Amino acid sequence: MSNELTRRALLAMSAVLAAGASLPSLGAVQTAEGHMRNMMEVPPNAPKVAMLIYPKMVALDLIGPMSVFKILRCDVQLVWKEKIAVSTDVGIPFTATQTFDECPQDVNVLFVPGGLMGTIECMNDPVVCSFLADRGSRAKWVTSVCTGSLALGAAGLLKGYDATSHWAVADLLPLMGARHVSRRVVRDRNRMTGGGVTAGIDFGLMIAAELKGEEEARRVQLILEYNPQPPFKNGSPEQAGAERVEKMRQRRGYMDAIARNAAEAAGKRINAVSS
Amino acid sequence: MSNELTRRALLAMSAVLAAGASLPSLGAVQTAEGHMRNMMEVPPNAPKVAMLIYPKMVALDLIGPMSVFKILRCDVQLVWKEKIAVSTDVGIPFTATQTFDECPQDVNVLFVPGGLMGTIECMNDPVVCSFLADRGSRAKWVTSVCTGSLALGAAGLLKGYDATSHWAVADLLPLMGARHVSRRVVRDRNRMTGGGVTAGIDFGLMIAAELKGEEEARRVQLILEYNPQPPFKNGSPEQAGAERVEKMRQRRGYMDAIARNAAEAAGKRINAVSS
Repeated sequence: MSNELTRRALLAMSAVLAAGASLPSLGAVQTAEGHMRNMMEVPPNAPKVAMLIYPKMVALDLIGPMSVFKILRCDVQLVWKEKIAVSTDVGIPFTATQTFDECPQDVNVLFVPGGLMGTIECMNDPVVCSFLADRGSRAKWVTSVCTGSLALGAAGLLKGYDATSHWAVADLLPLMGARHVSRRVVRDRNRMTGGGVTAGIDFGLMIAAELKGEEEARRVQLILEYNPQPPFKNGSPEQAGAERVEKMRQRRGYMDAIARNAAEAAGKRINAVSS
Repeated sequence: MSNELTRRALLAMSAVLAAGASLPSLGAVQTAEGHMRNMMEVPPNAPKVAMLIYPKMVALDLIGPMSVFKILRCDVQLVWKEKIAVSTDVGIPFTATQTFDECPQDVNVLFVPGGLMGTIECMNDPVVCSFLADRGSRAKWVTSVCTGSLALGAAGLLKGYDATSHWAVADLLPLMGARHVSRRVVRDRNRMTGGGVTAGIDFGLMIAAELKGEEEARRVQLILEYNPQPPFKNGSPEQAGAERVEKMRQRRGYMDAIARNAAEAAGKRINAVSS
């Protein structure tokens, strides 16, 4: 063992002991398991985070913020109608840990990921919309990434709020009473909505700071080594330029068109309720 | 239907017809399924991507690059000893789609994600190391994100190569014959290794450009809206500053110490083989 190694190992042991935990045994596998368990343990009174999952969602929309919540040791639950596996864009199924009924009445964070074809089904689904509307009415934070904000909008949760969404559908937000603000993450009172997919990491760090303070958010950022250096400048319509955007709009035309239909229908419902 | 909507829908339909595909029916759910299926379909001769998964891995290390490969319609397989579910840091299990035996002899991309406690077990596991060494000897690209490079190193695949890893363990690479280069993504001949966790997205776009050309990589970037805007400057040891780094090194001391042991043992094996 080098001196540096000994020093670090001793420091680690003292930290463990200082925290009142038992010293991990040195049997390799069991120690690794124990260490992992300690890292993941959810303390009492941890913030309750309810993350909606649904068929055809985009995995990265969820995994970015979820990684942040987990490092913060929040009580993170994946919520859907039933405790079944739903499909994702990458082909890895995600399984709900709570049904809508099991989800606590009062959560600290209600979060909706994107996944346009699936989002549209959520927008048109009264069971999903009423679950979101109910928990969202009391949640400390009502949040989304990517097209998830369209589902929040369809549940009436963005009426009168600034919000954003994936660039390709953000223009649909006003159909449901929201003001579209073109920023990576938009906060308006207790609503926090992020742009497309990778905005979930920026969003995650911003909500981390709200839940646990800036220093904790910075700690998460260092663990995730979030010092992004995109090889190209093509991450927004402005950067990509009109020609590339038009090409993509054509490829997406079918999807975006039925999203508009859903947003228009939701807008009518929301206005009928509030008038 | 607005004129804009009609125009977009028509453009989308023409694109579908031009591609020789059958016109999607307008029955909502079935159309969405069909659309989704078309989006995900893997064309013949798609690049073969073998992504190692293993217990205690970091989900985001995999999902970032996997999202890129999927949008590029690569033939993506999750590979492990058996077709079983492995645990991840966020608590969502990932299930292998191919065993080591089923993984093709020649793949375009061999990829290893991180997850330090699990990575260490891979480094110490002769079955995992010999699988990586074998496929890596013929793979067009040998790649990793985060601590995944330690497993490549333990398999002897980084000897004489520039490489990087998560900042906290990157100093272990030279123990296995690699030169540590402190960059977000390091390419040396057909090796491409990324830094910690979120570097997987930068890595994904860089390998996308190699597989399919820059224009396709840019298309992926626009879909993922990868225009990062971290709320804090704390994503590297330099940005975080000495005090925060030392604090984290103390918390990580136990993990990093056993990683060093594994790297030293691997280094001895590698030198024994080559001398």
